[in-house]
This record gives sequence, structure tokens and C-alpha cells, in this order.
Amino acid sequence: MTEKILAFQALTPAQTRELADQGVAVVPASEWQSATEISIIFGWSRQHGLAVLQNPANQVKWIQTVSAGIDYLPLDWIREHHIQVTNASGAYSGAIAESTLGYLLYFLRGFNEAVKNQAGHFWQQPARSDLDVLANQKVVIYGTGSIGQAIANLLNGFGNYPFGVNRSGHGVTGFQGAVAMQDDADLVKDADIIINAMPATSETTHYFNEAYFNQLNGLRIFVNVGRGKSVDEQALMHALLYQNVLHAALDVFENEPLPKDSKLWNYPNVLITPHQTGFAPDNALPIFDYLRDNVESFVQDGSLHVNVADVSRGY
Amino acid sequence: MTEKILAFQALTPAQTRELADQGVAVVPASEWQSATEISIIFGWSRQHGLAVLQNPANQVKWIQTVSAGIDYLPLDWIREHHIQVTNASGAYSGAIAESTLGYLLYFLRGFNEAVKNQAGHFWQQPARSDLDVLANQKVVIYGTGSIGQAIANLLNGFGNYPFGVNRSGHGVTGFQGAVAMQDDADLVKDADIIINAMPATSETTHYFNEAYFNQLNGLRIFVNVGRGKSVDEQALMHALLYQNVLHAALDVFENEPLPKDSKLWNYPNVLITPHQTGFAPDNALPIFDYLRDNVESFVQDGSLHVNVADVSRGY
Repeated sequence: MTEKILAFQALTPAQTRELADQGVAVVPASEWQSATEISIIFGWSRQHGLAVLQNPANQVKWIQTVSAGIDYLPLDWIREHHIQVTNASGAYSGAIAESTLGYLLYFLRGFNEAVKNQAGHFWQQPARSDLDVLANQKVVIYGTGSIGQAIANLLNGFGNYPFGVNRSGHGVTGFQGAVAMQDDADLVKDADIIINAMPATSETTHYFNEAYFNQLNGLRIFVNVGRGKSVDEQALMHALLYQNVLHAALDVFENEPLPKDSKLWNYPNVLITPHQTGFAPDNALPIFDYLRDNVESFVQDGSLHVNVADVSRGY
Repeated sequence: MTEKILAFQALTPAQTRELADQGVAVVPASEWQSATEISIIFGWSRQHGLAVLQNPANQVKWIQTVSAGIDYLPLDWIREHHIQVTNASGAYSGAIAESTLGYLLYFLRGFNEAVKNQAGHFWQQPARSDLDVLANQKVVIYGTGSIGQAIANLLNGFGNYPFGVNRSGHGVTGFQGAVAMQDDADLVKDADIIINAMPATSETTHYFNEAYFNQLNGLRIFVNVGRGKSVDEQALMHALLYQNVLHAALDVFENEPLPKDSKLWNYPNVLITPHQTGFAPDNALPIFDYLRDNVESFVQDGSLHVNVADVSRGY
């Protein structure tokens, strides 16, 4: 029997042929309503995805996302109906890591002030002690998966060996050490740079809240390239105002697009990018590889091996 | 006989004692006019340096600069009077290299547009193809000395192996190849990123001129962390206007401070920093090491071994 894959994420004709050779017929997104017997979904639609799952004419067994996070899926329904999910973890990690290094250097090397001074044609050298190099910074990365490891790997090239924070405190290559989330207090109170690269789960929701920021004292840079829900934005703005945090670079937000009237836009020591740190021209290539490799085992025996998400944990 | 060193660059009491132990007496900058028998100058004064050299009460044999470049010294006079010069090459290379990587990521990762959009509270994602990662860029670095090597070393950590341009075309570690300056045409015409890290000499003056930029076609990023005189700023602005060059990051200028009425300030695709890429809190530490090591041999037999500049070449 030929499996049917509904492609909310467009596939090229060549990719469609390749899947056909593997025994999988591609249904274009436009046919989401009329198609029947859909067993696989590639990508997602916030508008129509759940309706496809709930349509009794289909029997979806597997969703391959094109994102690393899976928090926007109807996870309760998916758990209840034993649908498997594979994600695109890794496809964006290299680009996100480069963006993160760019964030750090933007503030460490004084570009934040330079950009403002340029607008006023103002030649104003900083004090030497205002700028610094990465090797001198104590960096703590929350999340030691694909993104956290890619960031650590780049930092190592600058002679910097970061600390990691993860669920169990297990050590990871590229990090000089790691602690479990509940044991992070001693680690972060004298950190220079804190980077969030955790997925959005119930455990990480508003992890960076008022109590968290209150334990910091002049943190040089806070970065969020994980998910917006992990940060209580009101608490972060308060921390910026009272200099518990001196600079922040944010790519993700509690509400996206960040509302036009959010006060975050105005903070002079905040760099805002619109959920773009993972963008690169060739993003789609590794994701199709994940799909194709998973299709291969799925058509044989229903098993999946690449980037299998833990639906109960939510990532 | 005790040598006397005129310290245009301030020395700490501890450093002064250390030099005294080596048989060298420190004369503070304030006594430049009254002091006699000065044989060494540490640092420089554009206002008074030449007068100290020309004062018949002194006999200056050696100048230790606190800069990597020596182009601002009265080189004709120095050559004529066989004064030795040692520079501070290496003291700033790490910081300059980090700034340079920051420049590249600023444009590659779309921060240039994000900063403008933030000012207008404007959430505007770029196209995926507008952003890119360093591994995909063809980078050409002019100058393969201490600064060029430090930049190449950081690039290597991003999976990027740049090309070098130097006087003879000799290969250098961290580069995938190098050519001599006169043979650079084939190399640069399809480059994505060109970085100038050459010293200011008669050979490098206005090296990047109209003819140079005309051979480029949509160069993604031009960086100048060498010397301002190497770039014809009029030609660069013309190239930016006609998109031979798409973005530029500049730390040094033909005239510094960059005049308030320079049109360069206004270019939307230019990032201007005020000659600060080398700044770091601990800049002074390696420079005193150079001075102390050179003093050691100088008091013994008049020889110098650390960072000896080639005064005839001017760097």
C-alpha cells in the first residue's frame, strides 16, 4: 500500500519523485481538505493541521516538522492518539550558533554604541575597559542539545569553554562542565553571559522570571535563541532597567510578531531580531534528508530513527 | 651606565621599579623638555616626539611603540639617524580579529536591517536567502601577519578557510592559499568578503581605489581594520552606490576622527566604529612584556629581539 504524505511544507518535483520511488505519494497542501488516507504530515499548518488529524478519512501516524521545536503542535491530541513526531533539530543549529556569536560580539566589541553614534555623526571611542574579548567571559548556556553544542563549538574557537545547564547535569563535549536546572544558582550569579537555547516545555515556561533575574548583578549579555515563552518579558525589562542585566539580544518573544507597542523595542541596550537566527539559504536540504531517511524505515516497518521527538516531554 | 627611557605611555610604579632593576630609569612624559640623555622612548607623542629626538642633549637609539603600526613616526629622520623601532604587533590582534568576526556576522546574520527595523518597531523577517553562514563565504584577507592570522584562525572555527594576499604570495597557516599583491585579480573578482589588515606603507596607500573596486561585482562585505590610508574613501563610496560593494565595516579612515561632514556616516550599508577594534581591558599587559624583554637585551649589548620593525619598509 502506498502511504500518503500531506506536504504543508512544499516539496520540489525532484523530491516528490524521490518519495514516490520510496512508495510515498505527495499530497500538496492545497488538498488538505479533500484528500483522504493521509498517514504522514510534512511541515505543519496552525490553521488546518488539527483538522487533518481529526478528519476520520485520514489516519495520521507520523508528523515530520520543519522546525526544531514542536511546542506549537496539538501535543495533547498527538499523545492521546499515539502519533509519532520527528523534528528538524540540527537543520538550524549552525546558523543559530553564528547569529549567537554575532550577538555576543555586537555588544562585547561596542557595536551597540557605535551604531547610535554613527547616526549622529559622532566619533566617540569607548574606554578600553568597556570592550572585551570572548576568552574573558564566563558563558552559561541553557540547553546542551544541537543548538547549545553548536554555540559551544564556536566559542571554543575563541578560547572560551562555556558551562551548560540541562535536565540532569550531564556533561557534554565542548563545555567545561554542566549542572542540572535546579542547581544553577551558584553557576549563574557571577556569569558574564547567559544564553537560552532550551525548547519550550512546561518546565521552561517563564524559567527566566523575576526571581531568576534578581540573582544576577550586572550580567553583561542575556541571549534568547530558544523560545519566547521561557522568558518573562516584564521581568527582563525590569532587570534591564535596574541593571541586573546590562544588554540583551532576543530573537524569540512571548508573542510573535512582537507587538508594535511592546516597550522592548525601545530599550537602548536590547537588540531585537525577528525570529531569524536560524535562517540560511540551504535550510531545506538537511530537513529533506531527515524526511527521506525516516520514510525509508517507516514504509518498511513503521519505525522512525532520525530526530524522533519525545512527545511526552514536548521536544 | 643607567639608560633613560622617556615614557610617553605611562608606566605603573611596579613597572617602573622592574625597569630600574634592569638598569633603566623612567622619565615621565611631563619632563620631555627638561630631561637629558634619553636613549629610549616608550610610546610616542605626535606633538613632542620629534623634538625629543632632535634635542642634542639626548641620544635616542630605540623607540618602543604601543601600536602595531609605526606609520605616524618621523620615519625619514629615524632611518637617517639609525634609530631602532620595535612595535606592539600582536597586542591587539586577538581583539581586532574578534571585532572583524563581529563585523562579518553583523551583516551576514541580518543585524544591519534588524537595527533599522527595531527603531521603527517594525517586525520584518528577511528572506532565508538574504542571510548566510561563514562556511559558505569566500574570504580574502590582505595582510597575513599577526592580525590576518588571528582572523584566519577564528574563521577556521566556523569551517571557513580564507585566502591571503601578501607581498610575496607565501603560504601561511590557517589560510587555504595565498597570492602576491600584484597577482590578486583572479582571486578577488568572485570573493564574497575582503578584509584589509595591511600596514600603511607607500605600497598600500590607496591600494583599494576605483580600479580595484571596479573589478568587484556585488562584493558582500568589505572590511578595513588595517589603516585608513589604504582605502580611497571616495572610490569606496562610489562602489557602495553602484553596488560593486554591498556592505562595508570600517574602523580606520583617511582622516581620524572621521570628519562630521563625511558622507560615509550616512551610508545605510556601512558600519562605522571609531578606531576601536583592538580595544580590550588588558591591552597594556603584552606591550609591557615586549618592552621588558627588549630592555633586557638592549642593556646587555644594544640588541632588540621582540617585534623589531623594518623601518625601511615602514612596518
